[in-house]
Amino acid sequence: MTLRLYNARILSMVEGQDIFTGEIIVEGNKISYVGESDKAPKVAADREIDCMGNVLMPGFKNCHTHSGMTAFRSLADDLNLQDWLYNEIFPREAKMDGEDCYWLTKLAILEYLTSGVTAIEDMYLTPETIADACQEMGMRCELVSGLNKFGPTLEVLEERYNKLNGKYPLVGFKMGVHAEYTCDKELLENVSKLIHKYEAPLYVHMSETKTEVDECIGRYGITPVALFDSLGLFDFGGVIYHGVWTTPEDWEILKKRGVMVVSNPASNAKLASGIAPLTDYLREGITVALGTDGPSSNNALDMFREMYLAAVMGKVREMDPLAVPAVEVLKMATVNGSKTLEHPDTDVLAAGKLADIIMIDLSKPNMQPVLNIPNNIVYSGCKSNIKMTMIDGKILYENGQFIGVDVDEIYRKSEEIMEKLR
Amino acid sequence: MTLRLYNARILSMVEGQDIFTGEIIVEGNKISYVGESDKAPKVAADREIDCMGNVLMPGFKNCHTHSGMTAFRSLADDLNLQDWLYNEIFPREAKMDGEDCYWLTKLAILEYLTSGVTAIEDMYLTPETIADACQEMGMRCELVSGLNKFGPTLEVLEERYNKLNGKYPLVGFKMGVHAEYTCDKELLENVSKLIHKYEAPLYVHMSETKTEVDECIGRYGITPVALFDSLGLFDFGGVIYHGVWTTPEDWEILKKRGVMVVSNPASNAKLASGIAPLTDYLREGITVALGTDGPSSNNALDMFREMYLAAVMGKVREMDPLAVPAVEVLKMATVNGSKTLEHPDTDVLAAGKLADIIMIDLSKPNMQPVLNIPNNIVYSGCKSNIKMTMIDGKILYENGQFIGVDVDEIYRKSEEIMEKLR
Repeated sequence: MTLRLYNARILSMVEGQDIFTGEIIVEGNKISYVGESDKAPKVAADREIDCMGNVLMPGFKNCHTHSGMTAFRSLADDLNLQDWLYNEIFPREAKMDGEDCYWLTKLAILEYLTSGVTAIEDMYLTPETIADACQEMGMRCELVSGLNKFGPTLEVLEERYNKLNGKYPLVGFKMGVHAEYTCDKELLENVSKLIHKYEAPLYVHMSETKTEVDECIGRYGITPVALFDSLGLFDFGGVIYHGVWTTPEDWEILKKRGVMVVSNPASNAKLASGIAPLTDYLREGITVALGTDGPSSNNALDMFREMYLAAVMGKVREMDPLAVPAVEVLKMATVNGSKTLEHPDTDVLAAGKLADIIMIDLSKPNMQPVLNIPNNIVYSGCKSNIKMTMIDGKILYENGQFIGVDVDEIYRKSEEIMEKLR
Repeated sequence: MTLRLYNARILSMVEGQDIFTGEIIVEGNKISYVGESDKAPKVAADREIDCMGNVLMPGFKNCHTHSGMTAFRSLADDLNLQDWLYNEIFPREAKMDGEDCYWLTKLAILEYLTSGVTAIEDMYLTPETIADACQEMGMRCELVSGLNKFGPTLEVLEERYNKLNGKYPLVGFKMGVHAEYTCDKELLENVSKLIHKYEAPLYVHMSETKTEVDECIGRYGITPVALFDSLGLFDFGGVIYHGVWTTPEDWEILKKRGVMVVSNPASNAKLASGIAPLTDYLREGITVALGTDGPSSNNALDMFREMYLAAVMGKVREMDPLAVPAVEVLKMATVNGSKTLEHPDTDVLAAGKLADIIMIDLSKPNMQPVLNIPNNIVYSGCKSNIKMTMIDGKILYENGQFIGVDVDEIYRKSEEIMEKLR
């Protein structure tokens, strides 16, 4: 299958490359050409798409989510964390099985496609069925283990790591633990052995709330970042989700170990966790990507929302309108996301890269006038501007329609699961 | 013209009324029936719309904007206020005329319609042509005078007040001044005389930044709220835009005078002005409505964004996930907006009210599952969910299409103006 997307404004996200008018040729699941039309090779395209001056750019990477929590959207908002978790979420999660998770993940994927998301990092209950849902729907995904003292066992983690890495072309599996406060030290030490066995980076919720950090210091005398480092858990790098309450000493560790931060500004605001120090991370050269967190704590799965919040909450935190500029935010949502996913082939639009491409509709009034496209995307953009979402060379969402998906079936199954979980 | 909208979930916003399934009948520009279908009067409708279980609710009121600033969207982001205003905005505004403002306002109105906005409070350069644009496009609007020491004269203000109130059915005019820091005391005293002559409420940008409040205290020894009160400017009530840096003493004045607050959380965050104390306002019983501010400082004109930010920034300000709950936010965006507009006939869906109605599309994945509609709207909603916007009984936007508007002409004219203002 060869696709030619012409008459496009191309925002390649290649460092130093300005937006230009041209075309992209996709052959199979890869980009074979990005450039001006008059220099393009002549190909026999199966389909030619006139982009009508709209923008082609790399898809957004949603680097932290719990997709299956679509079950709990709007179920229990405006509650404190303890009430929410212990009274509303845990009892219902106990009733969820792998098939439930499969359908609820599919529901989330529909929303990702409307938001231009072409890859996710997903930490949730049943990685096997989440993998099925992603592969079937065509969503690129890194499953992240949420290991904690309640389960699963280290043996299961290792088995999944070996089984799910490579099972499907679109799906990988990362070693992760849920958080410091849901693991004891012995468990963390054992995870560290596994990390060293596979020379794997570690993924973990970390420094999300002040309480979490204070309690860790109470237990161990050091911050979660320092604790994990002392246990060798960051010896092969890794990613911390949230990173709201890190210290300057933590930043030194993150830099030394090449640990990246995935920021989740909507969730951090809604749950009143705080505002992450993105300005500090930028200054220190710590790589920041963005994620929506789960639909129960956001509640949308909307990368435009995350980009906007990263920029403006960064400004209000520093009381400085120059903080966290739009161009940096756009990088977080694309290039840096690929880094945390360890997907170097999806970061920019260039020949040889995987064809994870979105089209931004400039014909909507919120994109007019077209004075500054990156700023329009970050500060004015919304889901209505996603005209096309392509993953691995396949168009999955176009002009408001999902391609080859039975949307009603997903909604119906989700409703049935809601009834069961009530 | 009689319209029947049936098979709808109705979120009337009438105090104490739950969401129910039923229908709405619109005759001319008014609602003649809201209720269950089997109790509805039989009418010969010109058009019957099957709402397919989607939500009908009162339109959103965007209670603070400068529509014509669409010219400056994405032109000068990530700058400090002084650079932005003096180097980028003022020189360009000096080149703008009434016709420019007319077209740029039309561009903004397109976006309002996509966001379910059915009324605006607009403070910008040429009220006469803004009025023309609103009436022609069918947008309900209160023009707000932005009088300051650079213009216009008090005579012009009074003339506009008398001429533009009543000129068009959809347009009114409010007495306003730009801000304390752009007026001298003598001017404010003269405005106060006018306020008393017409027994009119006063509309003003107030306590937006800490600097503004500190400088006012430096000049007069009291806060802007106290100063305006001491000059009798709030003797007939009024509205302050922003209200980020008010004090407990200010709150007492606002309560005593029935002065309301229009909060603009996106602009306040993007310009790093701060986070308004919405929790305090709610506790004190001060009426809060929402506005987008102008597209140069937001940059979208999106009431979903404002609702979300009001809720979550309120939470992060108080570090309390229970702060500023969704139901209060929905009231701010609808019922309370009508109060600041002095449009009591647009606040809720009920027989006899004006037909300013929007339809929220629940069939999009971000609205699934349908567990709690108000929370879905506030925490997950986006422009894609606006299936219909009706103002004064006329459907102006439906299924992504603008009705009876030459969109291309508006874009083309706007581009020409951009060229001129470059």
